[in-house]
Amino acid sequence: MPQHSTSGSPSSKPFGRLLLTGASGNLGRQLRGALAHWADHVRVSDIAALGEAAPHEELCPADLADRAAVTHMVEGVDAIVHLGGISIDAPFDDLIEANIRGTYNLYEAARKHSVKRVVFASSNHVTGFHPVTSVLDAEADHRPDSLYGVTKSFGESLSRYYYDRFGIETVCLRIGSSFEEPKNARMLVTFLSYGDFIELVRCSLFANRVGHAVVYGVSDNPASWWNNAKAGFLGYRPRDSSAPYAARFPATAPNADLADPAQLFQGGPFVLGEPMEKVAR
Amino acid sequence: MPQHSTSGSPSSKPFGRLLLTGASGNLGRQLRGALAHWADHVRVSDIAALGEAAPHEELCPADLADRAAVTHMVEGVDAIVHLGGISIDAPFDDLIEANIRGTYNLYEAARKHSVKRVVFASSNHVTGFHPVTSVLDAEADHRPDSLYGVTKSFGESLSRYYYDRFGIETVCLRIGSSFEEPKNARMLVTFLSYGDFIELVRCSLFANRVGHAVVYGVSDNPASWWNNAKAGFLGYRPRDSSAPYAARFPATAPNADLADPAQLFQGGPFVLGEPMEKVAR
Amino acid sequence: MPQHSTSGSPSSKPFGRLLLTGASGNLGRQLRGALAHWADHVRVSDIAALGEAAPHEELCPADLADRAAVTHMVEGVDAIVHLGGISIDAPFDDLIEANIRGTYNLYEAARKHSVKRVVFASSNHVTGFHPVTSVLDAEADHRPDSLYGVTKSFGESLSRYYYDRFGIETVCLRIGSSFEEPKNARMLVTFLSYGDFIELVRCSLFANRVGHAVVYGVSDNPASWWNNAKAGFLGYRPRDSSAPYAARFPATAPNADLADPAQLFQGGPFVLGEPMEKVAR
Amino acid sequence: MPQHSTSGSPSSKPFGRLLLTGASGNLGRQLRGALAHWADHVRVSDIAALGEAAPHEELCPADLADRAAVTHMVEGVDAIVHLGGISIDAPFDDLIEANIRGTYNLYEAARKHSVKRVVFASSNHVTGFHPVTSVLDAEADHRPDSLYGVTKSFGESLSRYYYDRFGIETVCLRIGSSFEEPKNARMLVTFLSYGDFIELVRCSLFANRVGHAVVYGVSDNPASWWNNAKAGFLGYRPRDSSAPYAARFPATAPNADLADPAQLFQGGPFVLGEPMEKVAR
Amino acid sequence: MPQHSTSGSPSSKPFGRLLLTGASGNLGRQLRGALAHWADHVRVSDIAALGEAAPHEELCPADLADRAAVTHMVEGVDAIVHLGGISIDAPFDDLIEANIRGTYNLYEAARKHSVKRVVFASSNHVTGFHPVTSVLDAEADHRPDSLYGVTKSFGESLSRYYYDRFGIETVCLRIGSSFEEPKNARMLVTFLSYGDFIELVRCSLFANRVGHAVVYGVSDNPASWWNNAKAGFLGYRPRDSSAPYAARFPATAPNADLADPAQLFQGGPFVLGEPMEKVAR
Amino acid sequence: MPQHSTSGSPSSKPFGRLLLTGASGNLGRQLRGALAHWADHVRVSDIAALGEAAPHEELCPADLADRAAVTHMVEGVDAIVHLGGISIDAPFDDLIEANIRGTYNLYEAARKHSVKRVVFASSNHVTGFHPVTSVLDAEADHRPDSLYGVTKSFGESLSRYYYDRFGIETVCLRIGSSFEEPKNARMLVTFLSYGDFIELVRCSLFANRVGHAVVYGVSDNPASWWNNAKAGFLGYRPRDSSAPYAARFPATAPNADLADPAQLFQGGPFVLGEPMEKVAR
Repeated sequence: MPQHSTSGSPSSKPFGRLLLTGASGNLGRQLRGALAHWADHVRVSDIAALGEAAPHEELCPADLADRAAVTHMVEGVDAIVHLGGISIDAPFDDLIEANIRGTYNLYEAARKHSVKRVVFASSNHVTGFHPVTSVLDAEADHRPDSLYGVTKSFGESLSRYYYDRFGIETVCLRIGSSFEEPKNARMLVTFLSYGDFIELVRCSLFANRVGHAVVYGVSDNPASWWNNAKAGFLGYRPRDSSAPYAARFPATAPNADLADPAQLFQGGPFVLGEPMEKVAR
Repeated sequence: MPQHSTSGSPSSKPFGRLLLTGASGNLGRQLRGALAHWADHVRVSDIAALGEAAPHEELCPADLADRAAVTHMVEGVDAIVHLGGISIDAPFDDLIEANIRGTYNLYEAARKHSVKRVVFASSNHVTGFHPVTSVLDAEADHRPDSLYGVTKSFGESLSRYYYDRFGIETVCLRIGSSFEEPKNARMLVTFLSYGDFIELVRCSLFANRVGHAVVYGVSDNPASWWNNAKAGFLGYRPRDSSAPYAARFPATAPNADLADPAQLFQGGPFVLGEPMEKVAR
Repeated sequence: MPQHSTSGSPSSKPFGRLLLTGASGNLGRQLRGALAHWADHVRVSDIAALGEAAPHEELCPADLADRAAVTHMVEGVDAIVHLGGISIDAPFDDLIEANIRGTYNLYEAARKHSVKRVVFASSNHVTGFHPVTSVLDAEADHRPDSLYGVTKSFGESLSRYYYDRFGIETVCLRIGSSFEEPKNARMLVTFLSYGDFIELVRCSLFANRVGHAVVYGVSDNPASWWNNAKAGFLGYRPRDSSAPYAARFPATAPNADLADPAQLFQGGPFVLGEPMEKVAR
Repeated sequence: MPQHSTSGSPSSKPFGRLLLTGASGNLGRQLRGALAHWADHVRVSDIAALGEAAPHEELCPADLADRAAVTHMVEGVDAIVHLGGISIDAPFDDLIEANIRGTYNLYEAARKHSVKRVVFASSNHVTGFHPVTSVLDAEADHRPDSLYGVTKSFGESLSRYYYDRFGIETVCLRIGSSFEEPKNARMLVTFLSYGDFIELVRCSLFANRVGHAVVYGVSDNPASWWNNAKAGFLGYRPRDSSAPYAARFPATAPNADLADPAQLFQGGPFVLGEPMEKVAR
Repeated sequence: MPQHSTSGSPSSKPFGRLLLTGASGNLGRQLRGALAHWADHVRVSDIAALGEAAPHEELCPADLADRAAVTHMVEGVDAIVHLGGISIDAPFDDLIEANIRGTYNLYEAARKHSVKRVVFASSNHVTGFHPVTSVLDAEADHRPDSLYGVTKSFGESLSRYYYDRFGIETVCLRIGSSFEEPKNARMLVTFLSYGDFIELVRCSLFANRVGHAVVYGVSDNPASWWNNAKAGFLGYRPRDSSAPYAARFPATAPNADLADPAQLFQGGPFVLGEPMEKVAR
Repeated sequence: MPQHSTSGSPSSKPFGRLLLTGASGNLGRQLRGALAHWADHVRVSDIAALGEAAPHEELCPADLADRAAVTHMVEGVDAIVHLGGISIDAPFDDLIEANIRGTYNLYEAARKHSVKRVVFASSNHVTGFHPVTSVLDAEADHRPDSLYGVTKSFGESLSRYYYDRFGIETVCLRIGSSFEEPKNARMLVTFLSYGDFIELVRCSLFANRVGHAVVYGVSDNPASWWNNAKAGFLGYRPRDSSAPYAARFPATAPNADLADPAQLFQGGPFVLGEPMEKVAR
């Protein structure tokens, strides 16, 4: 059961209680602090260690595949930022538990507890098999580049169902590459600064109505594969860019190997992965 | 009959004579001064009191529903900025006179006097029944949110006819919310500063060819429901934004009432209006 | 007040009472008989003489511009086939009364009496300024070819409003040329046989949900400017064709006058009309 | 392990060996006989009883969730018609096993055994939350109407991945309502006759290249929500229609309850379902 | 100089004089007879032997690359069916003369002699590098599959220019495979019967306005890569089909070589060609 | 034969050798210096005098219509910037040699020497017959405004073929008006500063994959007819604008001659040109 902080004091923050799943991951750690500005209480959850709770925080360790645990985790929250699950390619049996059963558990819990807004960490890998010479928007067809991408595509479909059927709004963030800095030439295109990531979550939580929205999580980089014009209602305006890092990956003559899928498709090296066998299941 | 100023002196201003209808309204008052820079003579008209005439001005009080008056009003002008008519919801019989018969009278007069350009104050309420989670452009289908919006839709259709049939060009300005400052949270999306309004009229008057154009009148606000890319030939680049006023309408958790039409549709409270009976017709 | 027939007997017909406006016009006369198969009671209305009432009929002479008369006319009906109004170009003041005020009166009456379905006789002249080398569908932009066409465009916008705001469903029939037989070469493209017209009304009345639909009223002619694929849910399948009449208008070498608007635009001779002054208003 | 028939004789049939999953279901039983005309050997599989094997058949009972069983099942086949899995709404844990893990197992087996073509029984319920007043094609966005529909959406995404990554072609059949005869009014729109179903599978198996195709499985019914023009390369031309059954579901005045989701959305009663708890898991 | 027939007699045929280029080719021979029904005089031209002139015919042997000859050839004609030029892949220097200089010569001659309609034999090879799993319409982007296809793309661009600049109308026929009968499996998709070819030319000549139109020349074959809905104004309704020939090319299991471009792209074997050196230039 | 510089020294520049055709033209002179930063060796070619070779340069005078010369010119280069050919309207026989045979020669040479990237100077005149009230993107249909524009359309089609067939990537730059400064009012819309031109070539050379791309070459001018959103993957961000020059072409009331094609179409005065006879061929 979630460890509620005892807070009876009056509050001027917009949300009473927000839930952050995947709080111990790369992006969860970035966001955890920011949520304090938006909610009186922040419930943080992960299957990994969560560290110390800040005064406004409730620690809620949980396995997303555990339905009962997830149901309890969601109780009493106003909105959810769902970063939890597996965020790289993995054996499909693992992906089923974390990203398929886990996401289902989360939405079922939201339905039972009347939570009306979810910010869902989807991924650019939902559309990673589009060529790098296309510019996509929210209506691009799903072409996942990996089993991981397939499970994120599933999450988007599932959340669409919960919106159409039960009115639970979701913003699907097709996150590019969110790190401290771009790590390679591809990330000059896909870079999402931590600051812009936080801003995008803020817009997704506070926009008055979002319906079922899809938006690419990307900074204002010079080159882009993605166009967010159709999500203009969110008010997301990136402030950062990969441009300052361009010199680290100096321009070269284009790779002559035109048949290299990792160069041809937006998913980059993901498109070369293969389904993995789970070891010692 | 219009009170012509006597001007035989040479002039370097681009237009000889511009007509401004609705000159005494909120936006008319803003624009009245600016027109002096673009035309030697500015004829100003309204059904309400017009105040004192500046030296370059011709006062032309008129009821738009009075065909003869409108015919005279339009004589000798080079272009028209048509802000006149009723700009809020009203009994339909009134809307007919001001916005339907009145707009017809204006275009007929333009045809008779060979006026070739009209800037027509349409309204975002022509498309106000689109959801707030859509981003519209000039080709969005008409979904008026009120009888007022229906009459503006009529004006757009009528002006299309006068362009296709008689070559009279029109720019339809689907004006958002043009006030000194945004007055509520919705206007953070729909705000059009007075400065941007004047700039949009300037672009609409001076663009060499406009055909029959539709453009949303909106500043460069953070969140937007409208995309003017298809009107790029007008050269309108908003300089203002609602961002400085955002703090006045602090973010709150999204309204939980998902069934509230005033929150779901772009028209806001307009979508809740009902046809009014005219009192004592 | 409508002259209700006294019918207390049980019935197996789908509708209790249908209202047909414009019952004395060309198409109204065609439809009047067919309605008997679909409704126990058929109320027929026109400003012109209505002839004798059949046993199942209620005669309801009325001027559409007379709000009180229209309100009474609509009382107690289950659905409306609205063919009334002016169906050719006419002085705009006349069009205002019949097609603008009249249509408003009809929808207001429908709202007050909770009528939930209207079949509205719109016209191909709503899009008559599209070139004859285009194939249009329900989403084509309005380019009326006459003031008459502008008022039908108004009717489509108005009915959209009544659907979005009050849930009154409308099928807008953009009728081509519905006569006994095609009368000229243009009608080989625009011909709608009486049989197909009746079938289209039948589909529009009986489809379980129509929302706000737009469909071109045209038979299965060899050449076509219109594509009804987006209205496939109506189930309208034309059975007739202009082909048997083709020999009456034998093929000639194309008219060499490429500048003739009546040949260039779908509206044909309508595009040459000019606004008319009303005589002796 | 599959029970191979011993066939060393020469053959003129196009396929050496076809696999049919879900062979004991409603559609599997229809198709089972037809496959004999197209392949020397037909391997039939189901979790339910398979009955007697015909001389050309190999019986291969299997649970799709059993990876090893599925791997063996697929060995040696030239193409797969995958009708297996759960075809109605069900507890999500069951859907995971049959439709998610099971479909993954099937495609992994196809990859391992170099099978290059799958005909996948998807469902119209992938898009069932589109309104009945829309006409959809293969590019409509996924709006599943049930958890069942979500798992079919998953299958389409997964198969897209196996095509983009491994070149395994799939035709996704979004099957309407395939029964002996239409059973209710909705099926007058969604009816797919058994004959047309078999023809659609034939086209899907024999088209020289299909890439990753999506096609609605529907007969040539009078009213339609679906347009297969983009799948014209398959050569599917339905020969049957629901028209002969129309009289069984006589037309009525439209249901006045505009708020009934089962009437508003293509999925019909599916859209009213709710996630089920699995009993005694 | 053309050998005019001496015809002073009155005529009831729609055209006075038609010009047919490429009259000695495969399709020219089919069409030559049909033209007699549409014109009093038929001028036939080719670089190859033209045979005997029928009474209504004028023989006009000419090399399309010879500007003066082409200018004379076009004098006095009402419309042109331009089948001339090279219709297979060839050395580019040859294609320049026949298909680029030759087509320019033809349009310049049409301009000088005020000919207002050309029916231009373009080719499906203008779009032959689209995959066989796409269905194209007139707006598909040009992806020629050969240098031959590039020169037909040139002809379409050139004719667009002559329409926009000089008002000369052209129908570009993207002819599939027009032979007595389909010769291979690909032609089951691309077959255009001689009868349908003649009908398509008839529609193209007699439609009152065609602007600059693009239409695929194909019969009503079961499978199709092309959709002519946007050319519905031409009134072309194919009457033939490749279906009766299907049995000659019996269905086989799909070719397993997914990398074979001749199977992947609509152009078939054309896509394997390579630019040819001209021998003994 | 190209005059190779002897360079065996190690290099840090991205390209070994770049070829610039049209090096003596207006834009060639601008680019010539910039290429030194991107390549160890720069081969410069023109039919006109090339001036002195810089140390890193190889002078290669050549007539593009001379196949052998072009073949030699291309030997050993890594990429080509093809500005050569005729860049204004000219007699078609001249355009054939320079822009049709010449471009073919260039691509054939690239194929033979395995060059994998070409930056091709196309022109806005490929689409110059679109009206000035349209905003075009890379998918706009070709509507050339001159024979010159037709030959650039040819170049785009040809390069598409070499990409689809042989994998040679091309960026087609539809260059606006690239001069030191805008020279007239039209150029306030079409201006491409030299700096932005060089940046656009840089992006086109260094983007890792470009496939067959089309991008308008235009600075960030206030008014625009072109939208490059679909080429966002190139990373081109113009830094200049025509705005500083606007005062030189002061706004005037719109030209009243609505029938003037040079004002109606994007091509401006080009649309008034006529095919020229070559003098003394």
